Amino acid sequence: MTLILIRHGESEANFANYWTGWLDVDLTSKGIEQAQEAGKKLTDAGIVIDAAFESVLKRSIKTAQIVLEQNRCLFVPEIKSWRLNERHYGALIGENKDQMAAKFGEAQVQKWRRNFEEIPPLIKENIDDRRYKALDPRLIPQSESLRMTSERVLPLWQDRIWPLLKEGKTVLVCGHGNSLRVLIQYLESIPKDEVDSIMVPNAAPLLYQFDSFGQISNKKIL
Amino acid sequence: MTLILIRHGESEANFANYWTGWLDVDLTSKGIEQAQEAGKKLTDAGIVIDAAFESVLKRSIKTAQIVLEQNRCLFVPEIKSWRLNERHYGALIGENKDQMAAKFGEAQVQKWRRNFEEIPPLIKENIDDRRYKALDPRLIPQSESLRMTSERVLPLWQDRIWPLLKEGKTVLVCGHGNSLRVLIQYLESIPKDEVDSIMVPNAAPLLYQFDSFGQISNKKIL
Repeated sequence: MTLILIRHGESEANFANYWTGWLDVDLTSKGIEQAQEAGKKLTDAGIVIDAAFESVLKRSIKTAQIVLEQNRCLFVPEIKSWRLNERHYGALIGENKDQMAAKFGEAQVQKWRRNFEEIPPLIKENIDDRRYKALDPRLIPQSESLRMTSERVLPLWQDRIWPLLKEGKTVLVCGHGNSLRVLIQYLESIPKDEVDSIMVPNAAPLLYQFDSFGQISNKKIL
Repeated sequence: MTLILIRHGESEANFANYWTGWLDVDLTSKGIEQAQEAGKKLTDAGIVIDAAFESVLKRSIKTAQIVLEQNRCLFVPEIKSWRLNERHYGALIGENKDQMAAKFGEAQVQKWRRNFEEIPPLIKENIDDRRYKALDPRLIPQSESLRMTSERVLPLWQDRIWPLLKEGKTVLVCGHGNSLRVLIQYLESIPKDEVDSIMVPNAAPLLYQFDSFGQISNKKIL
């Protein structure tokens, strides 16, 4: 019953220091190397993956596929879900983090980034992307607080990820800084006002083991 | 209602001219380029993929994933099934095709390769591989005729691929020389004794369109 959480490798947006949210940016060459390294670490640790969950953004999908290939198990099922997408950053998407700090002040930017309830300014136009076409339009946000991100990530955990763990499977979840942050907050029962203390570095495998009551019995960073 | 059949790009075994069957060999660098080229051709032709079927062998999975990335739709569902695996070549697996022709005669090798009913010599040991652990052991062959390959490929077509086409989806099927050969034989109603006339080159997209009765209305090689 092993869960592996991995944030995608360095993306073009991480490198250029702007907010991406649901923008579909690629990995940098460093990001690809980080993903390979993460896969090797898992293999060296004797981890054998049974299934992989990914967002519908390619920095997550490519990271997972690189990890699976390194782990010699590209044949395992991959489940791609918008529920693992990065937090939707609203009108901050595409904006440089330093420039926004200069404009709105560091305190406001920190609030947008780490306060559980804070919703960044809304985008004006709704997303028109075929990967979200089958969704109830009410599910497509114009911006998200961390709470809103948590509320759409957790059903995937509850309905798909935990049942596989309960069967004894080893499950890889390859997500984003904030979709993993809110999952970790939930799994470790971290108070919502301490969510800013949860750091999720790129492509560093975080391993959890659970007892059959869903309580964490072991936690390790590879 | 568009079906795209693609055989994987050049594999290490294609390059070295030996039989692979269910051996999990990698793509060569030429094979990777061929897959990229195939993906670009599809994009240039305005094809928008909705779902991808792959075998559980990495030359197929990697080819499909490269095509999806080039087609800017890495987010579509990927379905990996042993039913799309290459024909199981029994004791011929790992043997050089020219050496076997010298040993058994060209005529016998041609019979093994292209006669619909011919079963190559059996392997002695059953496959022990975790990707087949959940299968009914009676489904795991020690060798396969083209008929046997056809009989295990077609249920995937009937149960999973056709229903998606019927919904109007554009479906990529990334298989192997013989798993695609028997599918083409079935779709085009080619007599079984002419199956040797069906050639499936590496990474050349073959497009079919169907009417609602499942009859081919258009066929094109990109």
